[in-house]
Amino acid sequence: MAIVNHQFRLASRPVGMPVRGNWNYVEEPIGEPQDGEILVKLLYISLDPAMRGWVKEGKSYIPPVGIGEVMRALGAGKVIASKFPGLAEGDYVGGMLGVQEYAVVPGKAVNKIAAPARELPVYIGGLGMPGVTAYFGLLEIGRPEPGNTVVVSGAAGAVGSVVGQIAKIKGCRVVGVAGGFEKCNYLTQELGFDAAIDYKSEDVFAKLREHCPKGIDVYFDNVGGDILDAALANLALHARVVICGAISQYNNTTPIKGPANYLSLLVNRASMTGMVVLDFLPRASEARAAMTEWRKAGKLKTREHIVEGLSTFPETLLMLFTGKNEGKLVLKVAED
Amino acid sequence: MAIVNHQFRLASRPVGMPVRGNWNYVEEPIGEPQDGEILVKLLYISLDPAMRGWVKEGKSYIPPVGIGEVMRALGAGKVIASKFPGLAEGDYVGGMLGVQEYAVVPGKAVNKIAAPARELPVYIGGLGMPGVTAYFGLLEIGRPEPGNTVVVSGAAGAVGSVVGQIAKIKGCRVVGVAGGFEKCNYLTQELGFDAAIDYKSEDVFAKLREHCPKGIDVYFDNVGGDILDAALANLALHARVVICGAISQYNNTTPIKGPANYLSLLVNRASMTGMVVLDFLPRASEARAAMTEWRKAGKLKTREHIVEGLSTFPETLLMLFTGKNEGKLVLKVAED
Repeated sequence: MAIVNHQFRLASRPVGMPVRGNWNYVEEPIGEPQDGEILVKLLYISLDPAMRGWVKEGKSYIPPVGIGEVMRALGAGKVIASKFPGLAEGDYVGGMLGVQEYAVVPGKAVNKIAAPARELPVYIGGLGMPGVTAYFGLLEIGRPEPGNTVVVSGAAGAVGSVVGQIAKIKGCRVVGVAGGFEKCNYLTQELGFDAAIDYKSEDVFAKLREHCPKGIDVYFDNVGGDILDAALANLALHARVVICGAISQYNNTTPIKGPANYLSLLVNRASMTGMVVLDFLPRASEARAAMTEWRKAGKLKTREHIVEGLSTFPETLLMLFTGKNEGKLVLKVAED
Repeated sequence: MAIVNHQFRLASRPVGMPVRGNWNYVEEPIGEPQDGEILVKLLYISLDPAMRGWVKEGKSYIPPVGIGEVMRALGAGKVIASKFPGLAEGDYVGGMLGVQEYAVVPGKAVNKIAAPARELPVYIGGLGMPGVTAYFGLLEIGRPEPGNTVVVSGAAGAVGSVVGQIAKIKGCRVVGVAGGFEKCNYLTQELGFDAAIDYKSEDVFAKLREHCPKGIDVYFDNVGGDILDAALANLALHARVVICGAISQYNNTTPIKGPANYLSLLVNRASMTGMVVLDFLPRASEARAAMTEWRKAGKLKTREHIVEGLSTFPETLLMLFTGKNEGKLVLKVAED
């Protein structure tokens, strides 16, 4: 007897903020796994700013989700049937599982997660793709030196919060830019940031100048727009700017706002470099090992914001763009 | 009997395009050189886009020219009196000599030029600061590999024309962006560029796509604005963008146009890095030696656009911003 699967399939490409009508919520039976495949029951789905890019037409670092296709998403779940030698029923796995209740995928396309079910949100958050992004983006592209001033935007988010904590571990002075008092308080009181700037109520340029009197050595950008410009205007000599995302610009219906202060790169002999975590996946275990140690030692904290119910997907996704999530946004699909 | 000196001194900071009234043309006696100093009779003055930046208020890579000060300029001239052991009357020297007929400067602040007077324009052009800028900007920041596609803007200018020729010497495919048929013809027919794009009559984005089917590996930018954006939209994976200047933006009275396509850096894991030639001056002789060899071998050509008369300075400078110069713009101040 076939299992009934619920899925969000892309119906149309969003213009501006995505709306529910951009997806069809469909019900269909899930097939059986063939040789080399597994059947996974999803427990958690990762909601990430990158998803906005995946539904856009046009060339990017991966092809867009096609109209009619299941919405792409990272997730974690439990193997309930396996024709793949390396995985057995009951194993927890993570990977590109889509916005749905069940997925049939090649066994080699997922990673086994050796952790209890309650820890799975961490493995798609701080220790998952956002954590790996933070780790390599900061250490390989940002290349902070002890004593450097590191600024990160989207600092209370899944990537930003890990960037800041790793920078602290590496002996840097860390300033986070986030939206709202609660998030800023979390950064300085819980995560040990040296300072936090609330872009919703403070002048980011002036506050960066105040908190970074010697200029910014590493700026890790998740947001783009005016905050990127404020950071560029405060660079130190030989600064490294890591372009990881531009969430402030993803839902634009007008052209993207380019960084008007980009000539600060010239004045300061600085660089601005784009990064995509996919390039570092072959080394993901290196990042996970280091972060797991730091987490055990209490030096790396993660926070997950869990919303229940697959059917809430379109509205829950928007929390990322309105800044309503506090910590890594995770959709809980089912009980173990 | 004191020599009478004519000078351009900064009277006010230009708003938009500089005008004659931004400088005072003054006449005053020149002093005697003191111990360690030399008295130089200027023969040629280098007119460079960077000069527009030097008269702007505010932080940059060097302090701005102060109101009332002699306008800063590189130049070449003849020593007519020396109290510096390393230089004698009759020696030719190059350095920061200012927009004037005579200069008293420390002997250690200039370089001796071992070339006949008629060659001096080359030593403040292709073999001078613009050449050194091109050499290190391309080779150290752009890091072209044989077979790479290199695009340079301002390609018929003092820096751009050398960038393109060095890229050819290094085995790259080279596309230049310049303004007008004559300049484009010069690039392909005289300098050996593989292709040239006339930004005044052609669609730069479409032509870059056509001439760079595998994308741009190195983009050397002298102009900023729409051409930078067109190049960003055509980057290859792991491209290097060198920010050397932004002549299209220097006379803006509105905010600088930031590169709206900067997220191409993310998509293509590319970098954009600013460079200032001052950082490479300790290694200038290395660049000059290589370029001198290439010039002797007929692989590196230079072209100078010489305008006579110190008094024409304000209007001659504008040729850079209207694109009227063909080759390195040089002001001839006096006969040897």
